[in-house]
Amino acid sequence: MTAAIRIAPTRAARALNLLRTVQYAHPPSCPCHSNPSHQHHHPSLLPSTLKHARRLATPVDVSQQKEYAFEMAASSIRFGPGCTKEVGMDFRNMGAKKVMVVTDKTVRKLDAMKQVVEGLEREGIPFEVFDGVRVEPKDTSVREAIDVAKPYQPDAFLAVGGGSVIDTAKLMNLYTCFPDADFLDFVNAPLGKGNPITKPLKPLIAVPTTAGTGSETTGTAIFDLVSKRAKTGIAHRNLKPTLGICDPLNTRTMPSAVHASSGLDVLCHSLESWTAIPYHERVPRPNNPINRPAYQGANPISDIFSLQSLRSTVQYLPRAVKDPDDHEAQSQMLLAATLAGVGFGNAGVHLCHGMSYPISGQNPGYKHAGYEVDSPIIPHGVSVAVTAPAVFRFTGASNPERHLAAAECFGVDVSQVKRESAGEVLSEALAEFLVKLGDQPRGLKYLGFTKDHVDALVEGTIPQKRVLMLAPSLESTDVEAEREQLRSLFEEALEY
Amino acid sequence: MTAAIRIAPTRAARALNLLRTVQYAHPPSCPCHSNPSHQHHHPSLLPSTLKHARRLATPVDVSQQKEYAFEMAASSIRFGPGCTKEVGMDFRNMGAKKVMVVTDKTVRKLDAMKQVVEGLEREGIPFEVFDGVRVEPKDTSVREAIDVAKPYQPDAFLAVGGGSVIDTAKLMNLYTCFPDADFLDFVNAPLGKGNPITKPLKPLIAVPTTAGTGSETTGTAIFDLVSKRAKTGIAHRNLKPTLGICDPLNTRTMPSAVHASSGLDVLCHSLESWTAIPYHERVPRPNNPINRPAYQGANPISDIFSLQSLRSTVQYLPRAVKDPDDHEAQSQMLLAATLAGVGFGNAGVHLCHGMSYPISGQNPGYKHAGYEVDSPIIPHGVSVAVTAPAVFRFTGASNPERHLAAAECFGVDVSQVKRESAGEVLSEALAEFLVKLGDQPRGLKYLGFTKDHVDALVEGTIPQKRVLMLAPSLESTDVEAEREQLRSLFEEALEY
Repeated sequence: MTAAIRIAPTRAARALNLLRTVQYAHPPSCPCHSNPSHQHHHPSLLPSTLKHARRLATPVDVSQQKEYAFEMAASSIRFGPGCTKEVGMDFRNMGAKKVMVVTDKTVRKLDAMKQVVEGLEREGIPFEVFDGVRVEPKDTSVREAIDVAKPYQPDAFLAVGGGSVIDTAKLMNLYTCFPDADFLDFVNAPLGKGNPITKPLKPLIAVPTTAGTGSETTGTAIFDLVSKRAKTGIAHRNLKPTLGICDPLNTRTMPSAVHASSGLDVLCHSLESWTAIPYHERVPRPNNPINRPAYQGANPISDIFSLQSLRSTVQYLPRAVKDPDDHEAQSQMLLAATLAGVGFGNAGVHLCHGMSYPISGQNPGYKHAGYEVDSPIIPHGVSVAVTAPAVFRFTGASNPERHLAAAECFGVDVSQVKRESAGEVLSEALAEFLVKLGDQPRGLKYLGFTKDHVDALVEGTIPQKRVLMLAPSLESTDVEAEREQLRSLFEEALEY
Repeated sequence: MTAAIRIAPTRAARALNLLRTVQYAHPPSCPCHSNPSHQHHHPSLLPSTLKHARRLATPVDVSQQKEYAFEMAASSIRFGPGCTKEVGMDFRNMGAKKVMVVTDKTVRKLDAMKQVVEGLEREGIPFEVFDGVRVEPKDTSVREAIDVAKPYQPDAFLAVGGGSVIDTAKLMNLYTCFPDADFLDFVNAPLGKGNPITKPLKPLIAVPTTAGTGSETTGTAIFDLVSKRAKTGIAHRNLKPTLGICDPLNTRTMPSAVHASSGLDVLCHSLESWTAIPYHERVPRPNNPINRPAYQGANPISDIFSLQSLRSTVQYLPRAVKDPDDHEAQSQMLLAATLAGVGFGNAGVHLCHGMSYPISGQNPGYKHAGYEVDSPIIPHGVSVAVTAPAVFRFTGASNPERHLAAAECFGVDVSQVKRESAGEVLSEALAEFLVKLGDQPRGLKYLGFTKDHVDALVEGTIPQKRVLMLAPSLESTDVEAEREQLRSLFEEALEY
């Protein structure tokens, strides 16, 4: 056995045992109970006929029926240094005749785009490049992009860039396939109508140039809805790319500060999906599988991805940030970002992400070190991680075993830790990790927020129903109580 | 922390560390070295210009170029007790107008089919049932099935049954979409032409009624090629189902002996894919991504699935076999079978499976206990597991760390075990597991094979190139040496 194997004798064992024990502590509710005409017999779930009879007599409130199934979907993933150049052959293989290449003005100059263009030209695939994607897209910029795609009528899309680029390409694909749809039709409720995407879209290949969003594997696209002054998005399995091409050569161009903040996004994707409410606690049960959300709560398959990406991130992110030549760590972070994408793409995120949107949107003027931009910016990864110590202290009581397992991933010996301290212990481990990573704001205060901003931050979080519904420990039925909890979370997050 | 968490303090930790260390011990070969015109710079992989210059001067033997990327593809998976009944809505959602339902005469009478038929009728989806699938399909029976599908011209397929049913449905789909193809066009080389499947097929939903093959997630279909007297198949990502509906209520009908043998298939899928050669040792590198095989060798994503399914199988298979009312164990085995399917579907299997095909095909007359059939039968899972103790003793030296990690999954304390003993230790753990499971033949002898059968078994294994190429420790360039190794493996497998 190698030295590496002796370092962490108990952490993963406990975590993996959790995969097998925690998830099934509460068996999924039985679908038959809600459907008296169902003929299936399974005696172990029907302890008494009395119980059944009582249910038959009481009208069922379908809005309170819990979920009984989960669905796992992910883009195909190709991973390898140099595999970007294969993309021309991929489009030839699918018979594409008009490819819309989506990128931004920074990525357009990078080697990833050079490889892509050479690959397409080598195979004689006609294409057009749209490089107008803006970082942290707004519905207005997305609509402009859609207006470019519609007249071109592409039969396939290729996104080359970070999460903003990939998300914009997904939306260009969606609204080109549904040209008559109103923009709000598919936008997450309650801001939009939240309609499901009822047919497959055109093929989309995503080539990430950051190791963060995991957008190359998910059916999620995030943007600012300017009219509502809120960050929201569209989430449906049919939005996911056909293939994610994860080429570690493409993330070498990231500056250290971008390695850090995109890696913190991975960290929170892992932690939030691992600690989200289990899928069988989510209400309501969908009346049609097409309405089963992608963000469905933790489940036994997403758990595997979330835990593995958490462990990889703790191990490799500090190396990737500190040494621009540590290509092994960078490669591992790209893989971790993709694994986390599969995890949260099928389980969801919760408080860190829900609270991050108003944090970024209501930025009092903070400009993150290492970002060469003209205007203030709180990078997405920074805005999710800044509340993480407060969030996981708060959620600890909901599932102490999972919070302790997460703390072990950070190297904490939890063998003597009481269950009641699980949240506190994970919170401290997280804070220590963030401090050691360097250049991270130690709370909202360091971004320029004060107690006076808290009410506005709370009001900006309340509409994030899609992620808040997966938050453990959060009041889901009483909005005033929820508001109070969020207020105290933001206050706690002012400094760690 | 719960008691369960304390039981296995070191196993998974080491295994998970392996996920991070073993795979990258040999960094993938650099694609740029084979392409001198490639402009990409990555200094760490170019230690000397001399080396580069030498490569430029020597003509490259492309058949010996190693792989540098891997690709992960899997069907979407829906998992939950009772979710079979959603299938009618799935077909309505995709706008299907003519569904070919594929099953066999046993499954047709089961509740799974009842749920499916009710679901389709409720949604008003026209369908036709083909129940003529035979267990362990032959090309002849597959051709008959295809001849039923072609005139019906279905726009979608639904498979309800075990691996034989799902595999047959895949082939019906393939040859209905390529009506002019010769049957051998897509069959694995060298028995067939091994052509890639160049376009997407019709949607196929698979509803497994056994917890074994994992066929609901893979692009593989296996059958006997009668003319060549060999088991072979077709393997390509485009063959994989659109969706696998894994409903634990559907596997409750399996007799105990079927739980056991299908579970042993899961065990070997896990162990073989975990120990297969790493993807970056496979030759040749494909010249087009469409030619990258599904069985591409162990990789960092398949590893996660293979190890998790191995651990689940060791924990839950004995319970599922012993107690027909242990629905939790049955449910976990269905999940393990699916996870193993994702693992081996993207990494491959090797010796146990390669050797199993002649074992089943050349059965001297063995009839497995608990199988109510008229003719002799060696169930697939039995035929793969019977050689496993010999196989993993043989492969141990190829990667001692992985074999020790696997042994730990069986509960062995390997902290004092020498690397040289890794194969032996795993072999013993496996043998003990099989003996305790009960009703398993303790070697080929117990199936009626003798030393005199070994030559024929070897000759039946040699054509299984697709899996043998992934076998660690096996001579790949000298067929006589390979023959000798297989001969001694079969002799070792006569009794454990």
